[in-house]
Amino acid sequence: MQRSSLIEKIKAKKSCLCVGLDTDPNKIPEHLHQNSKEPLKAFNSAIIEATAPYAVAYKINTAFYEAMGAKGWELLKATCELIPPEKMVIADAKRGDIGNTAYQYAKAFFEELDVDAITVAPYMGKDSATPFLAFKNNSVFILALTSNPTADEFQYLSVKGQPLYLQVMATAEKWASPESLMFVIGGTRPGELSNLRAAYPHHVFLVPGIGSQGGDLVTILRYGLGPDKALLVNASRSIIYSDSGVNFAEAASNQAYEYQKTMQAFF
Amino acid sequence: MQRSSLIEKIKAKKSCLCVGLDTDPNKIPEHLHQNSKEPLKAFNSAIIEATAPYAVAYKINTAFYEAMGAKGWELLKATCELIPPEKMVIADAKRGDIGNTAYQYAKAFFEELDVDAITVAPYMGKDSATPFLAFKNNSVFILALTSNPTADEFQYLSVKGQPLYLQVMATAEKWASPESLMFVIGGTRPGELSNLRAAYPHHVFLVPGIGSQGGDLVTILRYGLGPDKALLVNASRSIIYSDSGVNFAEAASNQAYEYQKTMQAFF
Repeated sequence: MQRSSLIEKIKAKKSCLCVGLDTDPNKIPEHLHQNSKEPLKAFNSAIIEATAPYAVAYKINTAFYEAMGAKGWELLKATCELIPPEKMVIADAKRGDIGNTAYQYAKAFFEELDVDAITVAPYMGKDSATPFLAFKNNSVFILALTSNPTADEFQYLSVKGQPLYLQVMATAEKWASPESLMFVIGGTRPGELSNLRAAYPHHVFLVPGIGSQGGDLVTILRYGLGPDKALLVNASRSIIYSDSGVNFAEAASNQAYEYQKTMQAFF
Repeated sequence: MQRSSLIEKIKAKKSCLCVGLDTDPNKIPEHLHQNSKEPLKAFNSAIIEATAPYAVAYKINTAFYEAMGAKGWELLKATCELIPPEKMVIADAKRGDIGNTAYQYAKAFFEELDVDAITVAPYMGKDSATPFLAFKNNSVFILALTSNPTADEFQYLSVKGQPLYLQVMATAEKWASPESLMFVIGGTRPGELSNLRAAYPHHVFLVPGIGSQGGDLVTILRYGLGPDKALLVNASRSIIYSDSGVNFAEAASNQAYEYQKTMQAFF
Protein backbone atom coordinates (compact mmCIF):
# COMPACT_ATOMS: atom_id res chain seq x y z
CA MET A 1 0.00 0.00 0.00
CA GLN A 2 1.17 3.49 -0.82
CA ARG A 3 0.08 7.09 -0.22
CA SER A 4 -2.99 7.47 -2.46
CA SER A 5 -4.67 4.32 -1.25
CA LEU A 6 -3.86 5.09 2.39
CA ILE A 7 -5.28 8.62 2.19
CA GLU A 8 -8.46 7.33 0.59
CA LYS A 9 -8.94 5.02 3.56
CA ILE A 10 -8.12 7.76 6.07
CA LYS A 11 -10.75 10.07 4.56
CA ALA A 12 -13.37 7.34 4.22
CA LYS A 13 -13.08 6.31 7.86
CA LYS A 14 -12.36 9.82 9.18
CA SER A 15 -9.56 8.21 11.11
CA CYS A 16 -5.79 8.35 11.04
CA LEU A 17 -5.48 5.84 13.85
CA CYS A 18 -2.65 3.33 13.73
CA VAL A 19 -2.73 0.69 16.45
CA GLY A 20 0.65 -0.42 17.68
CA LEU A 21 0.95 -4.12 18.43
CA ASP A 22 3.75 -4.03 21.04
CA THR A 23 2.69 -7.42 22.30
CA ASP A 24 4.50 -8.46 25.47
CA PRO A 25 3.89 -11.86 27.14
CA ASN A 26 4.35 -10.17 30.54
CA LYS A 27 1.66 -7.59 29.89
CA ILE A 28 -1.23 -9.45 28.29
CA PRO A 29 -4.15 -10.48 30.53
CA GLU A 30 -3.35 -13.39 32.80
CA HIS A 31 -6.44 -15.40 31.82
CA LEU A 32 -5.15 -15.74 28.24
CA HIS A 33 -2.10 -17.63 29.48
CA GLN A 34 -4.39 -20.04 31.30
CA ASN A 35 -7.12 -20.48 28.68
CA SER A 36 -5.32 -20.41 25.36
CA LYS A 37 -2.67 -22.56 23.71
CA GLU A 38 -1.48 -19.51 21.82
CA PRO A 39 -2.14 -16.67 24.26
CA LEU A 40 -0.25 -14.02 22.28
CA LYS A 41 -1.99 -14.84 19.04
CA ALA A 42 -5.33 -14.85 20.87
CA PHE A 43 -4.48 -11.44 22.31
CA ASN A 44 -3.49 -9.94 18.94
CA SER A 45 -6.52 -11.45 17.27
CA ALA A 46 -8.89 -9.96 19.84
CA ILE A 47 -7.18 -6.56 19.76
CA ILE A 48 -7.25 -6.43 15.97
CA GLU A 49 -10.91 -7.37 15.80
CA ALA A 50 -11.82 -4.89 18.53
CA THR A 51 -9.97 -1.94 17.00
CA ALA A 52 -10.43 -2.57 13.26
CA PRO A 53 -13.62 -0.46 13.06
CA TYR A 54 -11.62 2.62 14.13
CA ALA A 55 -8.14 2.05 12.71
CA VAL A 56 -6.66 2.41 9.24
CA ALA A 57 -3.27 0.93 10.05
CA TYR A 58 -1.42 -1.43 12.39
CA LYS A 59 2.18 -0.99 13.42
CA ILE A 60 3.99 -4.12 14.51
CA ASN A 61 6.93 -3.46 16.77
CA THR A 62 9.23 -6.25 15.64
CA ALA A 63 11.44 -6.12 18.76
CA PHE A 64 8.70 -7.61 20.91
CA TYR A 65 8.44 -10.58 18.55
CA GLU A 66 12.19 -11.05 18.06
CA ALA A 67 12.52 -11.27 21.84
CA MET A 68 10.70 -14.61 21.52
CA GLY A 69 13.00 -16.03 18.84
CA ALA A 70 11.67 -18.24 16.02
CA LYS A 71 8.31 -18.55 17.78
CA GLY A 72 8.08 -14.78 17.75
CA TRP A 73 8.58 -14.72 13.99
CA GLU A 74 5.83 -17.25 13.58
CA LEU A 75 3.59 -15.01 15.68
CA LEU A 76 4.66 -12.00 13.60
CA LYS A 77 3.62 -13.78 10.42
CA ALA A 78 0.37 -15.05 11.94
CA THR A 79 -0.41 -11.53 13.17
CA CYS A 80 0.14 -10.03 9.71
CA GLU A 81 -2.35 -12.57 8.38
CA LEU A 82 -4.92 -11.61 11.03
CA ILE A 83 -4.97 -7.96 9.97
CA PRO A 84 -7.73 -7.19 7.43
CA PRO A 85 -6.29 -6.58 3.95
CA GLU A 86 -7.59 -3.01 3.70
CA LYS A 87 -5.40 -1.86 6.61
CA MET A 88 -1.85 -0.63 6.13
CA VAL A 89 0.52 -2.97 7.96
CA ILE A 90 3.73 -1.28 9.08
CA ALA A 91 6.71 -3.24 10.37
CA ASP A 92 8.33 -0.93 12.89
CA ALA A 93 11.76 -2.47 12.47
CA LYS A 94 14.01 0.58 12.01
CA ARG A 95 16.34 -1.34 9.74
CA GLY A 96 19.26 0.30 7.93
CA ASP A 97 22.29 -1.39 6.38
CA ILE A 98 24.49 -1.55 3.25
CA GLY A 99 22.75 -2.29 -0.05
CA ASN A 100 23.07 -6.08 -0.30
CA THR A 101 22.00 -6.44 3.34
CA ALA A 102 19.13 -3.96 3.02
CA TYR A 103 17.95 -6.05 0.08
CA GLN A 104 17.74 -9.06 2.39
CA TYR A 105 15.73 -7.01 4.91
CA ALA A 106 13.41 -5.89 2.11
CA LYS A 107 12.86 -9.55 1.20
CA ALA A 108 12.23 -10.40 4.87
CA PHE A 109 9.55 -7.75 5.30
CA PHE A 110 8.01 -7.20 1.87
CA GLU A 111 8.11 -10.81 0.66
CA GLU A 112 8.39 -13.19 3.58
CA LEU A 113 6.10 -11.25 5.94
CA ASP A 114 4.34 -9.34 3.16
CA VAL A 115 3.79 -6.12 5.11
CA ASP A 116 2.92 -2.84 3.37
CA ALA A 117 5.57 -0.63 4.91
CA ILE A 118 8.67 -0.54 7.07
CA THR A 119 10.45 2.04 9.21
CA VAL A 120 14.08 2.68 8.16
CA ALA A 121 16.93 4.40 10.04
CA PRO A 122 18.70 6.97 7.85
CA TYR A 123 22.25 7.06 9.25
CA MET A 124 23.82 5.06 6.38
CA GLY A 125 22.25 7.16 3.62
CA LYS A 126 20.39 6.38 0.41
CA ASP A 127 21.99 2.92 -0.09
CA SER A 128 20.17 1.69 2.95
CA ALA A 129 16.71 2.78 1.71
CA THR A 130 16.92 2.04 -2.01
CA PRO A 131 16.30 -1.74 -1.82
CA PHE A 132 13.06 -1.09 0.08
CA LEU A 133 11.99 1.71 -2.28
CA ALA A 134 12.49 -0.59 -5.27
CA PHE A 135 9.32 -2.47 -4.32
CA LYS A 136 6.48 -1.01 -6.38
CA ASN A 137 3.58 -1.44 -3.94
CA ASN A 138 5.26 -0.75 -0.62
CA SER A 139 6.14 2.25 1.48
CA VAL A 140 9.13 3.34 3.55
CA PHE A 141 8.97 5.52 6.65
CA ILE A 142 12.29 7.26 7.23
CA LEU A 143 13.06 8.11 10.86
CA ALA A 144 13.30 11.88 10.90
CA LEU A 145 12.51 13.17 14.38
CA THR A 146 11.85 10.58 17.06
CA SER A 147 9.77 10.81 20.23
CA ASN A 148 12.32 9.50 22.76
CA PRO A 149 14.03 11.73 25.36
CA THR A 150 17.55 11.51 23.88
CA ALA A 151 16.47 12.09 20.28
CA ASP A 152 17.99 15.57 20.53
CA GLU A 153 21.47 14.20 21.16
CA PHE A 154 22.06 13.88 17.41
CA GLN A 155 18.83 14.88 15.66
CA TYR A 156 19.07 18.50 16.82
CA LEU A 157 22.75 18.97 16.05
CA SER A 158 23.18 22.06 13.91
CA VAL A 159 24.09 21.29 10.29
CA LYS A 160 24.32 24.17 7.83
CA GLY A 161 22.40 26.31 10.32
CA GLN A 162 19.53 23.89 10.83
CA PRO A 163 18.94 20.76 12.91
CA LEU A 164 20.17 17.45 11.49
CA TYR A 165 16.64 15.99 11.22
CA LEU A 166 15.75 18.71 8.69
CA GLN A 167 18.83 17.82 6.67
CA VAL A 168 17.83 14.16 6.82
CA MET A 169 14.37 15.01 5.49
CA ALA A 170 15.65 17.35 2.77
CA THR A 171 18.02 14.63 1.55
CA ALA A 172 15.65 11.68 1.91
CA GLU A 173 12.75 13.35 0.12
CA LYS A 174 14.86 13.15 -3.06
CA TRP A 175 15.15 9.37 -2.81
CA ALA A 176 11.58 8.69 -4.00
CA SER A 177 8.19 10.31 -4.49
CA PRO A 178 5.84 10.88 -1.53
CA GLU A 179 3.78 8.01 -2.91
CA SER A 180 6.24 5.61 -1.26
CA LEU A 181 8.53 7.76 0.90
CA MET A 182 7.14 8.90 4.24
CA PHE A 183 8.50 10.18 7.54
CA VAL A 184 8.36 9.29 11.23
CA ILE A 185 7.88 12.43 13.34
CA GLY A 186 7.65 12.06 17.12
CA GLY A 187 4.37 13.24 18.64
CA THR A 188 6.10 14.66 21.71
CA ARG A 189 7.39 17.63 19.66
CA PRO A 190 4.33 19.60 18.48
CA GLY A 191 6.18 22.80 17.51
CA GLU A 192 8.41 20.88 15.15
CA LEU A 193 5.45 18.94 13.77
CA SER A 194 3.73 22.19 12.80
CA ASN A 195 6.83 23.50 11.01
CA LEU A 196 7.43 20.19 9.27
CA ARG A 197 3.86 20.00 8.02
CA ALA A 198 4.26 23.49 6.53
CA ALA A 199 7.52 22.43 4.86
CA TYR A 200 6.20 19.04 3.70
CA PRO A 201 2.45 19.48 3.14
CA HIS A 202 1.96 16.30 1.12
CA HIS A 203 4.18 13.65 2.74
CA VAL A 204 2.60 11.05 4.98
CA PHE A 205 3.79 11.48 8.57
CA LEU A 206 3.66 8.60 11.02
CA VAL A 207 3.42 10.14 14.47
CA PRO A 208 4.04 7.85 17.46
CA GLY A 209 4.15 9.06 21.04
CA ILE A 210 0.55 9.62 22.16
CA GLY A 211 -0.64 7.90 25.30
CA SER A 212 2.18 6.38 27.35
CA GLN A 213 4.84 8.64 25.83
CA GLY A 214 2.87 11.82 26.60
CA GLY A 215 2.03 13.30 23.16
CA ASP A 216 -1.30 15.15 22.95
CA LEU A 217 -3.69 13.88 20.28
CA VAL A 218 -5.60 17.11 19.60
CA THR A 219 -2.38 19.08 19.19
CA ILE A 220 -0.99 16.44 16.84
CA LEU A 221 -4.15 16.49 14.72
CA ARG A 222 -4.24 20.29 14.60
CA TYR A 223 -0.62 20.54 13.50
CA GLY A 224 -0.19 17.32 11.62
CA LEU A 225 -3.18 16.63 9.38
CA GLY A 226 -2.35 19.25 6.77
CA PRO A 227 -4.29 19.78 3.53
CA ASP A 228 -4.29 16.10 2.49
CA LYS A 229 -4.91 14.37 5.85
CA ALA A 230 -1.65 12.55 5.16
CA LEU A 231 -1.22 11.49 8.77
CA LEU A 232 -1.06 8.34 10.84
CA VAL A 233 -1.16 8.70 14.62
CA ASN A 234 0.07 5.63 16.44
CA ALA A 235 -1.05 4.51 19.88
CA SER A 236 0.26 1.25 21.31
CA ARG A 237 0.23 0.69 25.06
CA SER A 238 -2.64 3.13 25.77
CA ILE A 239 -4.94 1.01 23.58
CA ILE A 240 -3.78 -2.57 23.86
CA TYR A 241 -3.15 -2.53 27.62
CA SER A 242 -6.03 -0.25 28.64
CA ASP A 243 -7.47 -3.11 30.71
CA SER A 244 -5.66 -6.15 32.08
CA GLY A 245 -8.73 -8.27 32.78
CA VAL A 246 -11.15 -10.38 30.77
CA ASN A 247 -12.64 -7.24 29.19
CA PHE A 248 -9.33 -6.14 27.64
CA ALA A 249 -10.66 -6.23 24.08
CA GLU A 250 -13.72 -4.16 24.91
CA ALA A 251 -11.52 -1.64 26.71
CA ALA A 252 -9.17 -1.48 23.71
CA SER A 253 -12.15 -0.98 21.44
CA ASN A 254 -13.45 1.85 23.64
CA GLN A 255 -10.05 3.57 23.71
CA ALA A 256 -9.66 3.25 19.93
CA TYR A 257 -13.19 4.64 19.51
CA GLU A 258 -12.31 7.60 21.76
CA TYR A 259 -9.28 8.39 19.63
CA GLN A 260 -11.26 8.05 16.41
CA LYS A 261 -14.04 10.31 17.74
CA THR A 262 -11.46 12.99 18.46
CA MET A 263 -10.06 12.54 14.96
CA GLN A 264 -13.47 12.66 13.29
CA ALA A 265 -13.98 16.26 14.40
CA PHE A 266 -11.04 17.28 12.19
CA PHE A 267 -12.51 15.87 8.96
CA MET B 1 32.39 -11.21 26.08
CA GLN B 2 33.93 -7.77 26.52
CA ARG B 3 37.12 -5.95 25.61
CA SER B 4 39.73 -7.53 27.94
CA SER B 5 38.80 -11.07 27.10
CA LEU B 6 38.59 -10.32 23.37
CA ILE B 7 42.02 -8.68 23.29
CA GLU B 8 43.55 -11.63 25.12
CA LYS B 9 42.22 -13.93 22.41
CA ILE B 10 43.39 -11.62 19.61
CA LYS B 11 46.93 -11.57 20.99
CA ALA B 12 47.02 -15.30 21.70
CA LYS B 13 45.96 -16.21 18.17
CA LYS B 14 47.77 -13.28 16.50
CA SER B 15 44.56 -12.76 14.61
CA CYS B 16 41.89 -10.09 14.52
CA LEU B 17 39.86 -12.00 11.96
CA CYS B 18 36.09 -11.89 12.21
CA VAL B 19 34.26 -14.15 9.76
CA GLY B 20 30.95 -12.77 8.51
CA LEU B 21 28.21 -15.37 8.12
CA ASP B 22 26.11 -13.65 5.42
CA THR B 23 24.57 -16.96 4.53
CA ASP B 24 22.41 -16.78 1.40
CA PRO B 25 20.50 -19.85 0.09
CA ASN B 26 21.18 -18.64 -3.47
CA LYS B 27 24.93 -18.51 -2.97
CA ILE B 28 25.85 -21.67 -1.08
CA PRO B 29 27.21 -24.60 -3.11
CA GLU B 30 24.57 -26.41 -5.13
CA HIS B 31 25.51 -29.86 -3.82
CA LEU B 32 24.47 -28.90 -0.30
CA HIS B 33 20.90 -28.33 -1.44
CA GLN B 34 20.90 -31.80 -2.94
CA ASN B 35 22.69 -33.73 -0.21
CA SER B 36 21.54 -32.15 3.02
CA LYS B 37 18.21 -31.79 4.76
CA GLU B 38 19.46 -28.57 6.31
CA PRO B 39 21.79 -27.16 3.64
CA LEU B 40 22.27 -23.75 5.29
CA LYS B 41 23.11 -25.23 8.65
CA ALA B 42 25.48 -27.66 6.96
CA PHE B 43 27.11 -24.75 5.17
CA ASN B 44 27.52 -22.66 8.34
CA SER B 45 28.79 -25.65 10.26
CA ALA B 46 31.46 -26.42 7.65
CA ILE B 47 32.49 -22.77 7.33
CA ILE B 48 32.78 -22.34 11.11
CA GLU B 49 34.84 -25.51 11.50
CA ALA B 50 37.09 -24.57 8.57
CA THR B 51 37.77 -21.01 9.73
CA ALA B 52 37.82 -21.43 13.54
CA PRO B 53 41.60 -22.03 13.66
CA TYR B 54 42.18 -18.54 12.23
CA ALA B 55 39.29 -16.45 13.55
CA VAL B 56 38.59 -14.85 16.92
CA ALA B 57 35.06 -13.70 16.12
CA TYR B 58 32.01 -14.41 13.96
CA LYS B 59 29.62 -11.75 12.76
CA ILE B 60 26.15 -12.93 11.89
CA ASN B 61 24.33 -10.65 9.48
CA THR B 62 20.79 -11.05 10.79
CA ALA B 63 19.13 -9.74 7.60
CA PHE B 64 20.06 -12.91 5.71
CA TYR B 65 18.35 -15.02 8.35
CA GLU B 66 15.28 -12.79 8.75
CA ALA B 67 14.73 -13.08 4.99
CA MET B 68 13.84 -16.72 5.69
CA GLY B 69 11.28 -15.94 8.41
CA ALA B 70 10.86 -18.17 11.45
CA LYS B 71 13.06 -20.87 9.87
CA GLY B 72 15.78 -18.25 9.55
CA TRP B 73 15.60 -17.51 13.27
CA GLU B 74 15.93 -21.19 14.03
CA LEU B 75 19.02 -21.25 11.80
CA LEU B 76 20.33 -18.14 13.54
CA LYS B 77 20.02 -19.85 16.92
CA ALA B 78 21.49 -23.10 15.64
CA THR B 79 24.40 -21.18 14.11
CA CYS B 80 25.14 -19.38 17.38
CA GLU B 81 25.31 -22.79 19.05
CA LEU B 82 27.75 -24.09 16.42
CA ILE B 83 30.29 -21.35 17.11
CA PRO B 84 32.94 -22.40 19.67
CA PRO B 85 32.41 -20.64 23.02
CA GLU B 86 35.80 -18.90 22.99
CA LYS B 87 34.86 -16.86 19.90
CA MET B 88 33.10 -13.51 20.12
CA VAL B 89 29.71 -13.79 18.43
CA ILE B 90 28.46 -10.49 17.03
CA ALA B 91 24.88 -10.05 15.83
CA ASP B 92 25.17 -7.50 13.05
CA ALA B 93 21.61 -6.28 13.48
CA LYS B 94 22.03 -2.48 13.57
CA ARG B 95 19.11 -2.08 15.93
CA GLY B 96 18.13 1.29 17.45
CA ASP B 97 14.82 2.24 19.04
CA ILE B 98 13.22 3.91 22.08
CA GLY B 99 14.10 2.52 25.51
CA ASN B 100 11.32 0.00 26.09
CA THR B 101 11.74 -1.35 22.55
CA ALA B 102 15.53 -1.45 22.75
CA TYR B 103 15.11 -3.49 25.92
CA GLN B 104 13.13 -6.06 23.91
CA TYR B 105 15.89 -6.18 21.29
CA ALA B 106 18.46 -6.64 24.06
CA LYS B 107 16.45 -9.59 25.34
CA ALA B 108 16.18 -11.00 21.80
CA PHE B 109 19.92 -10.92 21.21
CA PHE B 110 21.57 -11.23 24.63
CA GLU B 111 19.11 -13.69 26.17
CA GLU B 112 17.16 -15.53 23.48
CA LEU B 113 20.08 -15.87 21.03
CA ASP B 114 22.76 -15.41 23.69
CA VAL B 115 25.28 -13.60 21.45
CA ASP B 116 28.21 -11.64 22.91
CA ALA B 117 27.70 -8.38 21.06
CA ILE B 118 25.39 -6.42 18.78
CA THR B 119 25.76 -3.53 16.33
CA VAL B 120 23.56 -0.52 17.18
CA ALA B 121 22.54 2.48 15.04
CA PRO B 122 23.06 5.76 16.90
CA TYR B 123 20.45 8.10 15.34
CA MET B 124 18.06 8.00 18.34
CA GLY B 125 20.72 8.72 20.95
CA LYS B 126 21.71 7.21 24.27
CA ASP B 127 18.22 5.80 25.05
CA SER B 128 18.60 3.37 22.22
CA ALA B 129 21.94 1.97 23.47
CA THR B 130 21.42 1.93 27.24
CA PRO B 131 19.31 -1.26 27.44
CA PHE B 132 22.07 -3.17 25.61
CA LEU B 133 24.82 -1.63 27.72
CA ALA B 134 23.00 -2.67 30.90
CA PHE B 135 24.05 -6.29 30.27
CA LYS B 136 27.19 -6.94 32.28
CA ASN B 137 28.92 -9.46 30.01
CA ASN B 138 28.04 -8.14 26.57
CA SER B 139 29.36 -5.54 24.17
CA VAL B 140 27.81 -2.93 21.89
CA PHE B 141 29.29 -1.76 18.61
CA ILE B 142 28.00 1.72 17.74
CA LEU B 143 27.88 2.50 14.01
CA ALA B 144 30.25 5.41 13.60
CA LEU B 145 31.57 5.48 10.04
CA THR B 146 30.21 2.87 7.65
CA SER B 147 31.75 1.33 4.55
CA ASN B 148 28.90 1.85 2.05
CA PRO B 149 29.07 4.40 -0.79
CA THR B 150 26.39 6.76 0.55
CA ALA B 151 27.70 6.80 4.12
CA ASP B 152 28.93 10.34 3.47
CA GLU B 153 25.41 11.64 2.86
CA PHE B 154 24.91 12.16 6.59
CA GLN B 155 28.02 10.87 8.36
CA TYR B 156 30.26 13.56 6.83
CA LEU B 157 27.89 16.49 7.42
CA SER B 158 29.74 19.23 9.24
CA VAL B 159 28.70 19.62 12.87
CA LYS B 160 30.58 22.13 15.03
CA GLY B 161 33.31 22.15 12.41
CA GLN B 162 33.78 18.40 12.26
CA PRO B 163 32.02 15.50 10.52
CA LEU B 164 28.94 14.06 12.20
CA TYR B 165 30.54 10.64 12.75
CA LEU B 166 33.14 12.27 15.03
CA GLN B 167 30.36 13.91 17.02
CA VAL B 168 28.61 10.53 17.25
CA MET B 169 31.78 8.94 18.62
CA ALA B 170 32.51 11.79 21.06
CA THR B 171 28.99 11.53 22.44
CA ALA B 172 28.72 7.73 22.44
CA GLU B 173 32.05 7.15 24.18
CA LYS B 174 30.48 8.75 27.29
CA TRP B 175 27.69 6.17 27.40
CA ALA B 176 29.91 3.38 28.78
CA SER B 177 33.51 2.32 29.25
CA PRO B 178 35.53 0.85 26.34
CA GLU B 179 35.14 -2.51 28.07
CA SER B 180 31.64 -2.76 26.56
CA LEU B 181 31.34 0.16 24.12
CA MET B 182 33.00 -0.29 20.74
CA PHE B 183 32.75 1.24 17.28
CA VAL B 184 32.11 0.13 13.70
CA ILE B 185 34.52 1.91 11.32
CA GLY B 186 34.29 1.12 7.61
CA GLY B 187 37.43 -0.40 6.09
CA THR B 188 37.00 1.52 2.85
CA ARG B 189 38.12 4.77 4.55
CA PRO B 190 41.77 4.24 5.64
CA GLY B 191 42.60 7.93 6.25
CA GLU B 192 39.75 8.26 8.69
CA LEU B 193 40.68 4.97 10.36
CA SER B 194 44.17 6.28 11.07
CA ASN B 195 42.85 9.50 12.61
CA LEU B 196 40.25 7.65 14.63
CA ARG B 197 42.79 5.22 16.04
CA ALA B 198 44.89 8.19 17.17
CA ALA B 199 41.84 9.78 18.81
CA TYR B 200 40.57 6.53 20.34
CA PRO B 201 43.64 4.38 20.98
CA HIS B 202 41.93 1.92 23.33
CA HIS B 203 38.44 1.33 21.89
CA VAL B 204 37.77 -1.86 19.96
CA PHE B 205 37.06 -1.09 16.31
CA LEU B 206 35.11 -3.53 14.15
CA VAL B 207 36.19 -2.88 10.58
CA PRO B 208 34.09 -4.42 7.80
CA GLY B 209 34.68 -3.81 4.13
CA ILE B 210 37.66 -5.94 3.10
CA GLY B 211 37.23 -8.33 0.20
CA SER B 212 34.08 -7.71 -1.82
CA GLN B 213 33.70 -4.12 -0.63
CA GLY B 214 37.27 -3.22 -1.61
CA GLY B 215 39.01 -2.38 1.68
CA ASP B 216 42.72 -3.26 1.86
CA LEU B 217 43.73 -5.54 4.72
CA VAL B 218 47.35 -4.40 5.16
CA THR B 219 46.33 -0.75 5.25
CA ILE B 220 43.62 -1.50 7.79
CA LEU B 221 46.04 -3.40 10.02
CA ARG B 222 48.68 -0.68 9.78
CA TYR B 223 46.24 2.07 10.70
CA GLY B 224 43.79 0.19 12.86
CA LEU B 225 45.63 -2.13 15.27
CA GLY B 226 46.89 0.59 17.60
CA PRO B 227 48.80 0.00 20.84
CA ASP B 228 46.35 -2.58 22.23
CA LYS B 229 45.50 -4.60 19.08
CA ALA B 230 41.89 -3.65 19.80
CA LEU B 231 40.74 -4.49 16.30
CA LEU B 232 38.41 -6.89 14.55
CA VAL B 233 38.58 -7.05 10.75
CA ASN B 234 35.54 -8.64 9.20
CA ALA B 235 35.48 -10.55 5.92
CA SER B 236 32.27 -12.18 4.76
CA ARG B 237 31.76 -12.97 1.09
CA SER B 238 35.48 -13.21 0.26
CA ILE B 239 35.83 -16.10 2.73
CA ILE B 240 32.54 -17.95 2.75
CA TYR B 241 31.97 -17.86 -1.02
CA SER B 242 35.57 -18.23 -2.14
CA ASP B 243 34.64 -21.50 -3.87
CA SER B 244 31.19 -22.61 -5.00
CA GLY B 245 31.99 -26.33 -5.39
CA VAL B 246 32.44 -29.29 -3.09
CA ASN B 247 35.70 -27.85 -1.76
CA PHE B 248 34.07 -24.67 -0.46
CA ALA B 249 35.11 -25.30 3.14
CA GLU B 250 38.73 -25.93 2.25
CA ALA B 251 38.75 -22.79 0.12
CA ALA B 252 37.25 -20.79 2.99
CA SER B 253 39.86 -22.21 5.32
CA ASN B 254 42.65 -21.25 2.92
CA GLN B 255 41.33 -17.71 2.55
CA ALA B 256 40.96 -17.31 6.33
CA TYR B 257 44.51 -18.63 6.74
CA GLU B 258 45.79 -16.11 4.19
CA TYR B 259 44.17 -13.27 6.11
CA GLN B 260 45.51 -14.54 9.43
CA LYS B 261 49.02 -14.91 7.99
CA THR B 262 48.92 -11.28 6.91
CA MET B 263 47.71 -10.32 10.39
CA GLN B 264 50.38 -12.36 12.18
CA ALA B 265 53.13 -10.17 10.74
CA PHE B 266 51.75 -7.24 12.73
CA PHE B 267 52.00 -8.96 16.12
